[in-house]
Amino acid sequence: MIGEFDLIRRFFSSTAATPGVAVGIGDDAAVLRVPEGCDLVAAVDTIVESRHFQAGSDPRSIGHRALAVNLSDMAAMGALPAWATLALTLPSADPGWLEGFAAGLMALARRHGVALVGGDTTRGPLAVSIQIMGFVPRGQALLRSGARAGDLLAVTGTLGDAGAGLALVQTGDAAPAELRHRFEYPTPRVEFGIAARGVATAAMDLSDGIAGDLPKFAAASGVAAHVDVERLPLSAALESHATAAQALDWALSAGDDYELMLAVPKARLRQLADAAAELGTRCTVIGEFRAGSGVTWSSKGRKFTPARGGFDHFA
Amino acid sequence: MIGEFDLIRRFFSSTAATPGVAVGIGDDAAVLRVPEGCDLVAAVDTIVESRHFQAGSDPRSIGHRALAVNLSDMAAMGALPAWATLALTLPSADPGWLEGFAAGLMALARRHGVALVGGDTTRGPLAVSIQIMGFVPRGQALLRSGARAGDLLAVTGTLGDAGAGLALVQTGDAAPAELRHRFEYPTPRVEFGIAARGVATAAMDLSDGIAGDLPKFAAASGVAAHVDVERLPLSAALESHATAAQALDWALSAGDDYELMLAVPKARLRQLADAAAELGTRCTVIGEFRAGSGVTWSSKGRKFTPARGGFDHFA
Repeated sequence: MIGEFDLIRRFFSSTAATPGVAVGIGDDAAVLRVPEGCDLVAAVDTIVESRHFQAGSDPRSIGHRALAVNLSDMAAMGALPAWATLALTLPSADPGWLEGFAAGLMALARRHGVALVGGDTTRGPLAVSIQIMGFVPRGQALLRSGARAGDLLAVTGTLGDAGAGLALVQTGDAAPAELRHRFEYPTPRVEFGIAARGVATAAMDLSDGIAGDLPKFAAASGVAAHVDVERLPLSAALESHATAAQALDWALSAGDDYELMLAVPKARLRQLADAAAELGTRCTVIGEFRAGSGVTWSSKGRKFTPARGGFDHFA
Repeated sequence: MIGEFDLIRRFFSSTAATPGVAVGIGDDAAVLRVPEGCDLVAAVDTIVESRHFQAGSDPRSIGHRALAVNLSDMAAMGALPAWATLALTLPSADPGWLEGFAAGLMALARRHGVALVGGDTTRGPLAVSIQIMGFVPRGQALLRSGARAGDLLAVTGTLGDAGAGLALVQTGDAAPAELRHRFEYPTPRVEFGIAARGVATAAMDLSDGIAGDLPKFAAASGVAAHVDVERLPLSAALESHATAAQALDWALSAGDDYELMLAVPKARLRQLADAAAELGTRCTVIGEFRAGSGVTWSSKGRKFTPARGGFDHFA
């Protein structure tokens, strides 16, 4: 059995010295340097077996997702991710499992230049909690609260793929690899979030489905939002695999997309579209923000009501 | 049932605006400002039911301990704690339990001026993961690696009380309230750690027992350590409740003390003692660092071997 002290060192050591890390893993705490003139941006997200992933899931996917959900929070703030700490609760220290988990986590960390600077391992039911830290030039963080009446509502990527992938895995159906992959290896929109700084007025990531997340976004900004459900971006894989009604339900109410919702003034839409084109990231206007409160939906010009809200972990 | 979104807001809102918090709980991430000329210090620690506390433990104690173990890491770095994020995994959202948990956590947070700036709640087996962030003047963090041959080895407080308290609670014996309290409400030595900056050459906190933790401390500094076990500070409550052999075993090998070990040059011992006196914190020299590697123990001038090492979560 591997000792606790060696566990994190063995599997999660960053290979290279990372800028801003004066002291990394191995002391009582990490010592870090936020660049001059920058704000620190910090978030935490946990994924738990049987809740966020099935027992027996590929550990590589679990490692990827645990970090991706946190990177998505950085993306939503327009922040450049820099450092992460890992709290890993494991039923046993199985080297094969840990190797896969660490490979998935560290590959994504390297892609985004994130250093793992601290960790804690505990024996218990499988759960992974990561706190991510990053930075933005002072005062430039994208908040949920900045949307104004008249701003357009845009989303990145396509919606519902991850939810479909998960549902199909859960029912044992042969899920198209593309949908399954979107659940197991979500792409946090970090570069897009950074590009949206100073262009978008507000942003929030989609973790629990737009039917549940958009009302929070609108409320945080003190405005209403309207969505034309025909404009929701759906992937060809989703459309070819599901009925129109099922695809729409997944796009509205399934979680795990980790795409961004953004508010953008009409006059700056061109800038956002250019950034999207440069990054090769799809970005679709699906509605707008209006004076008032709450969210309304329309389909073919008629009022529409989503069948269910977003995913609530305690509902 | 309470919605996830409301859970953290309802129970963990800080009452006052905290310096350095530009955006707190409620956005995708917090936006924070590290003071000019300071390093950021960050650590994470998790406590899990049945591992770090018994099922049915007082939620107030669980809340206190979850933060205290993290504050202890700040203390060991000589850092001033400032912000924390909370990842809370709960079998159900029981308002009574949450109220007690939040009361214990927030009382300790207020005492140390720590703002809760982010959180994530998930349904699952009870586990609490906190990441703490604080700061030190640039380059002044107390590391584990600074001890030099010839430095004295000192510890704060008394050792073994928490281990005795836990053992007595577990066996159902009538534990003296003082010992039990030391387990349920440990005192992180934050002010002492800050006072030791520039005086001590190195520090580490005691979470798993000195028999297990001191070898790590010595190894991190590349020196040997020697302890005279007669000098280990024991409380009157511990000495009056246990045999000498049992008390010594708890002092050496039980965890959960959250006292500090410090390396201090002989010429600066007076300064450390003065700081201890001013803070009303006991500080005892128990040995010294020497050239070489490993830890040796003596009792009444003869070689001594601890019956067991420290607590290892994966041993």
